Amino acid sequence: MNLRYDERLDGAIQRVDKATVLAALQRADATLEVLHEPEALRPFECDGLAAYRVAPLLVVLPSHLEQVAAVLRTCHALGVPVVARGAGTGLSGGALPLEHGVLLVMARFHRILGLDAEARVARVEPGVRNLAVSEAAAPHGLYYAPDPSSQIACSIGGNVAENAGGVHCLKYGLTVHNVLGVDVLTVEGERLAIGGEALDAPGFDLLALMHGSEGLLGVVTGVTLRLLPKPEVARVLLASFASVDAAAHAVGAILAAGIIPGGLEMMDNPAIRAAEAFVRAGYPVDAAAILLCELDGVEADVREDAARVRELLASAGAVEVREAADDAERARFWAGRKNAFPAVGRLSPDYYCMDGTIPKRELARVLDGIEVLSREHDLRVANVFHAGDGNLHPLILFDANAPGELKRAEALGGRILELCVAVGGSITGEHGVGREKINQMCAQFGEGELVAFHAIKAAFDEHGLLNPGKGVPTLNRCAEFGTMHVHRGAVAFPELERF
Amino acid sequence: MNLRYDERLDGAIQRVDKATVLAALQRADATLEVLHEPEALRPFECDGLAAYRVAPLLVVLPSHLEQVAAVLRTCHALGVPVVARGAGTGLSGGALPLEHGVLLVMARFHRILGLDAEARVARVEPGVRNLAVSEAAAPHGLYYAPDPSSQIACSIGGNVAENAGGVHCLKYGLTVHNVLGVDVLTVEGERLAIGGEALDAPGFDLLALMHGSEGLLGVVTGVTLRLLPKPEVARVLLASFASVDAAAHAVGAILAAGIIPGGLEMMDNPAIRAAEAFVRAGYPVDAAAILLCELDGVEADVREDAARVRELLASAGAVEVREAADDAERARFWAGRKNAFPAVGRLSPDYYCMDGTIPKRELARVLDGIEVLSREHDLRVANVFHAGDGNLHPLILFDANAPGELKRAEALGGRILELCVAVGGSITGEHGVGREKINQMCAQFGEGELVAFHAIKAAFDEHGLLNPGKGVPTLNRCAEFGTMHVHRGAVAFPELERF
Repeated sequence: MNLRYDERLDGAIQRVDKATVLAALQRADATLEVLHEPEALRPFECDGLAAYRVAPLLVVLPSHLEQVAAVLRTCHALGVPVVARGAGTGLSGGALPLEHGVLLVMARFHRILGLDAEARVARVEPGVRNLAVSEAAAPHGLYYAPDPSSQIACSIGGNVAENAGGVHCLKYGLTVHNVLGVDVLTVEGERLAIGGEALDAPGFDLLALMHGSEGLLGVVTGVTLRLLPKPEVARVLLASFASVDAAAHAVGAILAAGIIPGGLEMMDNPAIRAAEAFVRAGYPVDAAAILLCELDGVEADVREDAARVRELLASAGAVEVREAADDAERARFWAGRKNAFPAVGRLSPDYYCMDGTIPKRELARVLDGIEVLSREHDLRVANVFHAGDGNLHPLILFDANAPGELKRAEALGGRILELCVAVGGSITGEHGVGREKINQMCAQFGEGELVAFHAIKAAFDEHGLLNPGKGVPTLNRCAEFGTMHVHRGAVAFPELERF
Repeated sequence: MNLRYDERLDGAIQRVDKATVLAALQRADATLEVLHEPEALRPFECDGLAAYRVAPLLVVLPSHLEQVAAVLRTCHALGVPVVARGAGTGLSGGALPLEHGVLLVMARFHRILGLDAEARVARVEPGVRNLAVSEAAAPHGLYYAPDPSSQIACSIGGNVAENAGGVHCLKYGLTVHNVLGVDVLTVEGERLAIGGEALDAPGFDLLALMHGSEGLLGVVTGVTLRLLPKPEVARVLLASFASVDAAAHAVGAILAAGIIPGGLEMMDNPAIRAAEAFVRAGYPVDAAAILLCELDGVEADVREDAARVRELLASAGAVEVREAADDAERARFWAGRKNAFPAVGRLSPDYYCMDGTIPKRELARVLDGIEVLSREHDLRVANVFHAGDGNLHPLILFDANAPGELKRAEALGGRILELCVAVGGSITGEHGVGREKINQMCAQFGEGELVAFHAIKAAFDEHGLLNPGKGVPTLNRCAEFGTMHVHRGAVAFPELERF
């Protein structure tokens, strides 16, 4: 491996004087908007992971491609790091600024450049909101499938950077499965045109490589999206269970029957109560767990699948199965789930949203484990899952103003992710590694894989100027973080036997 | 970009004496089987692209992982290039040996290590045959979806290296969409464990990067495959058309209706006649084109879709639509298509199989273009397509013993691929670049993308020892090859206006 990536990644950033950077940027493009006053920088101090805050050296707001290239070339020449930011809704601190870095805000790239209904393709700038694509496609009977809960606000460029999912990704895939091509500027400001309309492209898979690369390899400046025909019908079943285990088994039974629901979501009692109190979704507040199962497609198929799912839910011990009577009720059922995070946020001053994945067969065991860890750390946890694809979102409730609680919440979060890795899962399903889970990467991967990541990073960005300190930990950091490396469940999680 | 990859890639390989390499390999592992006599090397001179033949320096046949690592470490230390080979069925010369390189034959890694029917996962060694996986999974009602025409012989490791497709990839995806994880040895013989059971993995997407990397980044030593439940029913419709255009329009109509067939294949008259003469599939030999449309899934759904497809075919001007009456006839319909290559091979002493992709809306125009080029080069072309995903397989008929015909066939093939690129397609759908299409990569990509490929190659293999001269052309080669760079159809194909 050709590992030339230096340790600057991890904080030892070169410090260039603010006035020098400002002057260089203004020289490069006199019309570029640059924010530099402390009060102007404040709104950009954090992304959706608000517990981490850093004011950037400068914020730039380019409005056309040549300005982005000028920013990159200028920063590259000065050795100043650059953090790209979309809508700032990310939950892992991927767009957290650097004190000595420039924050490159892509918000002004918000145009839908073209929509070809026949080819089912939309070409958009990276700042276009996720939901805006489906809105523009709706008159043609089409939509853009990935639907993160933040879809009203999050941008397509950010979706690519984090390889965003959503409640429908079990059936329709992640962002990478719904993007045909991206235009990228390298750290030197050079253009790369990646992907195309074919299923596969010759050469190494740069398209997949850019997805989920969290701004470490380049800056996305254009995206070609695949659109799908809107399903003829969609029906949602809401099943309540007297135990989380029973709900977990129902998930397995539905998938084993060969049914692929459009969405298959689980919530536990604290999450149900919080959502119900917040949006009045009509959830049964006494249930230990609920499943939301959406079936979509052509009428006959959906009818048949719905009947089969009802049987399976009953066999798995569902206490009650209800079906949304109309579109309004269907929207309400989903609103509870999609607002689960802010809903839980009302239960306690702060919450910390985790994002681990596990093999589905481990669901019940991991939930038991989370309960044990929750008691040990003396913090409540509400659980929301993309059950169908084994993606957990435990929400840890805490009070940042209570001495020691933030630290305890972080510790609990770390333990939960390590538990996910120990059973053969991973530390992030769809929220990315960002700044938040940089230490857990040391649990997820061995030295070989980390070296490969660094070699790829070095191939694109030798001096580590693009979003340093995110996504991939240095080997030094992993040596310090110490603990264990568990891989594919092969090495034991010390406490796992208790669960 | 950190471009350190040197030009050795393209032929200026270091030459190490055969006896020295042999002695070093025997020292590294006395039990390793090494072939070195000329007659023992002869069977390994080519892969499925038999027009290119080179006897390797040595052939090694390791039978366990540590031997593969020993071969890689030894060759790395000596600076000797290594070409990995699976079953040798590849059609682009990806496993073509190097005169001064070691051929690493993975044929002895042919064990299915485990099959978890509940999790729908199989863990296999790379030398396992594609079809053997489905055979092992059949008792559980499962199968492995990608089905290249060579599936009876081709190996899973080779499928990963070339990101193989098949007639069902429109609905079920390419190899990359059906593989959950790979174990890889680097050029230094270090192990990488890539992927897992989750939809997405943290870090850069090494799994996608390895797929289609044609042995340039590492050697695959283990593969975890996703298995699918066998569809309840499958029905095949055979439609004949009086013109290729009409058949092309029918393809568009079926997809526009939101139907995703399990397979949607087109053959033109020369291909139909050849297949019929060879396997008696029951094809209408006077049709200008036929479509084979397979619908699979649950009974009710398939019945409804089949009725709708019949209507669409009729509206598009199908002269006749027949449905396979039983499994035997269904197998016959497919046998004609799957044996189209050898069937066409009976029409002329040699044939040259191309593998381009195009946007589906360009199908009729590109077929007209191929006809014009065929006349200009005075060579017959039979056409077979994965119509549903725009993947063309023009088969150029020629006689290698007739002076100048091979050269003319290669020239025609090159022009056909450039035509594909000019309309926004690509030079390979599923057969890979290998040795064969190295020049066409210069037409497909600009300098920026090629530099990115080289940077990635250098990250994994700084000295260019893994399969040099395949997959990615040097910038020097592209400068020599000259011609045009056409990208996303933006630059005109000089002759395109005629079509």
